[in-house]
Amino acid sequence: MRRIRITIAYDGTDFHGWQVQPGLDTIQGAIENVVASIEGRPVHVSGSGRTDAGVHALAQVAAFSIENPIPAPNLRKAMNRLLPRSIRIDAVTETEPDFHPRFDAKAKTYEYRILRTDICPPFERLYVHHHPFPLNIARMVEAAAVFEGEHDFSAFAASDEKDELGASKVRCIFSSQLTVEGYRLTYRVRGSGFLKHMVRNLVGTLIEVGKGNLTCADVRARLAPRCGALPGPAVPARGLFLVSVEY
Amino acid sequence: MRRIRITIAYDGTDFHGWQVQPGLDTIQGAIENVVASIEGRPVHVSGSGRTDAGVHALAQVAAFSIENPIPAPNLRKAMNRLLPRSIRIDAVTETEPDFHPRFDAKAKTYEYRILRTDICPPFERLYVHHHPFPLNIARMVEAAAVFEGEHDFSAFAASDEKDELGASKVRCIFSSQLTVEGYRLTYRVRGSGFLKHMVRNLVGTLIEVGKGNLTCADVRARLAPRCGALPGPAVPARGLFLVSVEY
Repeated sequence: MRRIRITIAYDGTDFHGWQVQPGLDTIQGAIENVVASIEGRPVHVSGSGRTDAGVHALAQVAAFSIENPIPAPNLRKAMNRLLPRSIRIDAVTETEPDFHPRFDAKAKTYEYRILRTDICPPFERLYVHHHPFPLNIARMVEAAAVFEGEHDFSAFAASDEKDELGASKVRCIFSSQLTVEGYRLTYRVRGSGFLKHMVRNLVGTLIEVGKGNLTCADVRARLAPRCGALPGPAVPARGLFLVSVEY
Repeated sequence: MRRIRITIAYDGTDFHGWQVQPGLDTIQGAIENVVASIEGRPVHVSGSGRTDAGVHALAQVAAFSIENPIPAPNLRKAMNRLLPRSIRIDAVTETEPDFHPRFDAKAKTYEYRILRTDICPPFERLYVHHHPFPLNIARMVEAAAVFEGEHDFSAFAASDEKDELGASKVRCIFSSQLTVEGYRLTYRVRGSGFLKHMVRNLVGTLIEVGKGNLTCADVRARLAPRCGALPGPAVPARGLFLVSVEY
């Protein structure tokens, strides 16, 4: 058996997220269908982690095992020919038999894009969160840095995260930065791992800071173990991109 | 009656073009519905010209007449609130009672975007023509300039252009330029008016030149009156943008 590692870019707009769900279009489902048609039997494709419905990826990483001897460059071409244009395979490489994209991941980077123009251009509407209202950007930049370090992110996890009940919600955030370029705000966060909805909750919290509803001290308090705070309002999926996975 | 002029940006992907067609989603139809709901009766919206299914606009111009005294800035807000996010009204102004966006137009500019990367990023797929094959760019740049001037563009009009039978197909092209930036080719053309499918036929012809199937002399021959040539292959609508209309 060959173990194949792939790097995938996708526009999540028309998909019900990464993970296979019966009767729904998902990224994993689309890729498994294509690999199965090449291999001639069902093939499981493992990803570095799930992305929610509507979330995009610039470089998701996945892996699968096949017997088909097709050379990697031809496999890449065949997959791109069979996949919808909203999913592109940017790289295909042979990897170690025991490579697992989720368990072997050392760090992930996400980006969240906010556009503050009065009107959102139609061509950007699927790839940014449009927020034309006043924000105190300096306070948001300050608050973004508060997330750096090892913290209990329970107050930033989806309330329905049942599959992780009892599991630790401590995560290590290596960097957390909000940058400003004209009307564009870009939040970039790199960490050891992320809970369900975590990035969208972090950004929702930063927006509350920008509106003056929360202070940096409030944000710090939400990182205290067993603080009991409920997750802040999550921002829409369309502004979120999985940027890279490191191994 | 007030005469209102609007500037519109739209993502044409999900529309059957500008012009109202019964039972189909069109840009004109969407705008007429919204204006009618504000005015309380059906209102005809005139555009500077049709765009085909899938063609985009950065600044289409249209006009309509209403009695509603709503101030222009509020009208813009109301329209954007009611329209789908793929259509945005960027400007609303009062204009002369006899202003007609089609008959008063002095010039129009279109842009056609070609992307030559090996793989087309999912986020660009709806807004470029992906052409990863070899092209002689220098010859295409040279051929683009051939279109400048007053010519009979019969050989670049849609073969089904019945509504213009007998009408002159002479148009004046003020500028016609292909520019290159890395993997991106941008064709920009400014003229007094354009025939149906004309820009897509011009670009299709330039691509034939780039492939070595046509020379600049062949292109010149197609501009001769009654040359009898059939329109070249049209490129896909998704790469085409109406950039501006001048009055």
